[in-house]
This record gives sequence, C-alpha cells and structure tokens, in this order.
Amino acid sequence: MIWPAMTASRITVLAGGVGGARFLQGLVDVVAPESVTVIGNVGDDVELYGLHVSPDLDTVLYTLTGWHDEARGWGVRGDTARALERAARLGAEAWFRLGDLDLGLHLARAERLGRGESLSAATAALGHALGLRLRLLPATDDRLRTMLTTPAGELDFQTYYVRRRHADPVSAIRFDGAEEARPAPGVLEAIAEADLVAVAPSNPFISIAPILAVPGMREAVAARRERVVAVSPIVAGAALRGPAAAMLRSLGHPVSPVAVARLLADVAGCLVVDRADAALAGDVEAADVRAAVTDTVMRDGRARRALARAVLTAGGLPA
Amino acid sequence: MIWPAMTASRITVLAGGVGGARFLQGLVDVVAPESVTVIGNVGDDVELYGLHVSPDLDTVLYTLTGWHDEARGWGVRGDTARALERAARLGAEAWFRLGDLDLGLHLARAERLGRGESLSAATAALGHALGLRLRLLPATDDRLRTMLTTPAGELDFQTYYVRRRHADPVSAIRFDGAEEARPAPGVLEAIAEADLVAVAPSNPFISIAPILAVPGMREAVAARRERVVAVSPIVAGAALRGPAAAMLRSLGHPVSPVAVARLLADVAGCLVVDRADAALAGDVEAADVRAAVTDTVMRDGRARRALARAVLTAGGLPA
Repeated sequence: MIWPAMTASRITVLAGGVGGARFLQGLVDVVAPESVTVIGNVGDDVELYGLHVSPDLDTVLYTLTGWHDEARGWGVRGDTARALERAARLGAEAWFRLGDLDLGLHLARAERLGRGESLSAATAALGHALGLRLRLLPATDDRLRTMLTTPAGELDFQTYYVRRRHADPVSAIRFDGAEEARPAPGVLEAIAEADLVAVAPSNPFISIAPILAVPGMREAVAARRERVVAVSPIVAGAALRGPAAAMLRSLGHPVSPVAVARLLADVAGCLVVDRADAALAGDVEAADVRAAVTDTVMRDGRARRALARAVLTAGGLPA
Repeated sequence: MIWPAMTASRITVLAGGVGGARFLQGLVDVVAPESVTVIGNVGDDVELYGLHVSPDLDTVLYTLTGWHDEARGWGVRGDTARALERAARLGAEAWFRLGDLDLGLHLARAERLGRGESLSAATAALGHALGLRLRLLPATDDRLRTMLTTPAGELDFQTYYVRRRHADPVSAIRFDGAEEARPAPGVLEAIAEADLVAVAPSNPFISIAPILAVPGMREAVAARRERVVAVSPIVAGAALRGPAAAMLRSLGHPVSPVAVARLLADVAGCLVVDRADAALAGDVEAADVRAAVTDTVMRDGRARRALARAVLTAGGLPA
C-alpha cells in the first residue's frame, strides 16, 4: 500500500455502527490507520444486567480488527451464546443478544468503568488489546441516550431498534443527558486539527445527530464546514440499511440525499451522493452543500476503497 | 423413599458452601425437601465486573439441583469459560473463575437485583427456575462481607480465599456491614418455627459466624438451643476441607471438635462428632454441649444419608 502524501493528513470521522464501520474499513485501506480518529456514537449505549454495552463503538472495534460477524451483521465472528441462553432459561430477558466472546469484552469494560475509568479510556484499552490501529473516541464520556417518541410511547434506542425491530413510526427524537454531556477528551481537538472531517454514511438522526448533540460539537464541526465531507446514507430513495428511510418519512422529510444535505447543511460543506442520485445534485447544492457524485454502495473492499478515495478527493486531499 | 413422620417436621439448616451443600444432599434424601429451609452465608459474596456473585448460595443451588461440578469442587458441571477467557485477554482480572453457564446465572441475578428485587427474592426465583425443592434464604438481603486480617493486611473473603488460596494466617475476622444488616424475610421465622435447627459441618468462622453476625440471629438461634444440632467440621485434628484447621490454630484454638463446641456453645445444645473423636465427647460435654458420636465423613450418598439421620436422631426427630 502507498500513501506518500497521506501520512501527514489527519482525518476525523463521525461514525455510527455498521455503515460507519464499513466506510472506515475502506478508509484504512487507503490511508494510514494511525492518521484516523473516529468519533463514535454513544446514543445507542445500553445497560444490560448492569453491564455498560456500547454497540456502535463495539461495531467499529470489531469490524476494524476482523472480529465483526459479517454474515450475521452484528456481534463477534464464531461466537456462542451459552451464558445468555442460560440467563434466559433462568428467567432473564435476552432480546439483546450478547455472545460469550462479546460478553467477555463487556466484562472487561465493566471492570474498567467500575474502578472509575472513563468510557474513552476503557475504549482505548480495549482497542489496544484487540489491535485496533485507528483512534476510537466516544463522542462523550457522559451519559447520553437516544430516546424515540413512537405511538407505543417514548422508547430508549435498543428497545426501539432491537427489541421492537425498528417497526414503530418515529415522531420525535431527543438525546437524554445531552445538555450536561461534555465532549470526551481529544474530541474537539480531533475536529479542530483534522485536514478532513468525514461524516460516514450513517443514519443522520440516530447515529450522527447524537454525536452533534454534545454541547460544543455542532459548533466545532460547523467551524470546519469547508473541510467537512458527508456521505449520503440514502441512495435511490432508500436507506442502505436500517430505519433511515422510514425515519425521514415519519419526520416529514423526503427520502432523498437532498433531505440529508438540508439536515447537515450547517456542519458539512460537501455531500457525496450516489450516481443513482446524480440528478439531485442541483437540489443538494441549492441547500448550499457542494455535491460530489460517485458510486457509494460498499458492496466489497474495492467499492469501499473507491468511496474512501472519493471522500478524500471531495475534501481536497490526495487520494 | 419413606418419611411418614417427617413430612410434618420442619428443619432449618445454617450452611456455608460445599460442606453445607453435601450435608443438605444427605438430608433431602431422608426428609421431604419441601420441609427444609436453608439459611445461607452471604459473607463470601463478591462484586465481579459489577455482577453480584453469591458463591455459597450458588453452591447450595447447584449441588441440590445436580449442576455442581463435583469433580472440580466449584462451578457448573460441563461449563466452558469463553467469556472470562476473552475478558482476561482484554486485560480483565480473571482469578475468580466464572464459567459461561455460571455467568448466565449471575446475569439473571443482576437483572433482578437491578430492577430492585432483594437478594432473597432473586435467589428464590433462580432456585425455582433450576428446580430447587428446598427453600434457600440468604441470611440477609443487606450487604455483609467477611473481612480477614492477615500479615498482608485486611483482605476481603474472595481475595483471601480464591486469589491468595487461603495461604495467609488469619489473626482476626470481622463482618463488614453486619451492624446495619437485617435478617432476610422468613429467616427468623424459619428458626423460631423449626422442629430442628441444624448447623451444617461448615467452617465456624467464615460460614456460620457471618450468618450469626446478623443482628437478632444469634439470639434467635440461642433461643432454640435445645433444638439446635451442629456437626463438627473438624475430624481427627484436621478440617475435612478448606482453612478451618489453620484458622483455629492461628486464632488460638485447638484443632478439635472441642473448640467447635466452645465456639457454638451459646447457640447449639448438641454437637455431632466423628467416631475418630469419640474420646473427646467428655470435653465437648464439659463445654455444656451434648455430644453425639457417629461417622461424619460424607464419602458417598450412603454416608451423607447416615449423617443426616444421626442429626435428626440427635435432635429428637424420627429418622
């Protein structure tokens, strides 16, 4: 691999779970992983059996260290579920599937948090132990939880997403705890000092918005707006995965990269849209966001690398 | 099995871990399990990775439901340790071995405690799920922890027992939290209403004393003294297992059933001693405790049943 000019460029990526992790896989194939800082979403975090679980951070961690179960789309490759099946047989709720190896990570994290370590320090230690080469930072070390208003009432994220299979129409979203949260150490610096800030093709409402909801974050990213390149998670009127399309609809937006451009216009100077949406480039630019058109669907390693290069190019970096 | 007269007798047993559980195995072979209430030690309880672990209660639970790993002497038959090995590889401490199936029970308990259930309610629910037929009550639902003074400083029980393999001489023992602890619901009634209160052949310092340390317990058992039959865990100058002999020595007592009689004289009217110690019966009785001599070593099911019958007889019940 050759990245002569890139070793000096610092890239910061705002990322949710699977879409964010896939984008990062392509990125670390074309730039030095050590030059990449990921600011991860913690709005999905959940306490299960008293253990703090950070599904989005863990998806990045597992994907970038080869442990993600690609076939299943979640959890750890080759995992078993003896502990959780036993707990279920003993009457515990088990709708959030935790495999045994995955549980091992949650135990290790719990031990660290239990002795007073911050989530970012625990994340760094777990990343180091798994051989993660990029820097993974939670947006905040403080408690911030995505809450969704649905006809069934206000639901916490995992109840909405996993337990009820994101089948409820969402009429409002808030981030519990956001007002008191502070950016984790290093987060504001990683935004201020980056040569490029990328917004991964993650759900704008439940992956990116909770990151920007930490006081000071939206302003910090907006201050770098001309260096911020977002990738649309909406392609040809549909979401690549998850409930982004349904959410756009139920929250009164068109299911289109144009809606993504409008939602991110204050923080992103450029939006990468798929060739399938090339005709919408003018509408994106009408939202005062530059449009860059390329293939965005990350079917394989080659497609992921091409998307990463397109983002670098859109941000004015060599690719 | 025939227990015509026994179905009406209520038996309450104060018990620690393995010795207590073995005694109970014999007892439920000769009386209806439903007539037995066990008051279990929680001084060994420990928080691991934020999970509440109750080793003595769990040993009773697993032994009486056929899940105890007899060959290994702890944990669950056929268990694996994928989660804990993973946690260890990710930097966590793993000196207290928790298998995956065992962890499942701790997760189920954590879920119940996390939603505000008491330890006794959680224990009852787990017992029910595993098919436990006797009634297992923790001595207290409150926090009570056995702390041991050693040349290495004051150690919590599991650090002393598991981590440091009970190799440190013990010069003092206290029960942290005991002053504020209250007997768990049903405990005082089970003592007051029992036709026989048995003290299992468990370590008097670290299994029985922490039960009696809950305010009101010692008085409640003492009030039934003529119906209390204890079994000596010391046979022929040695402990059947664990550090009881070393503790007697380091705390200034002879390693003898006579010391056990003196330690329990205020609560037990009768001490069952092994035939090997028959010559000490007079010294036991000099401590104002009736001596009953029989074979007490629980080599197999037959020996366990014979010991249970000897305890019933010593307590004046049909056997």
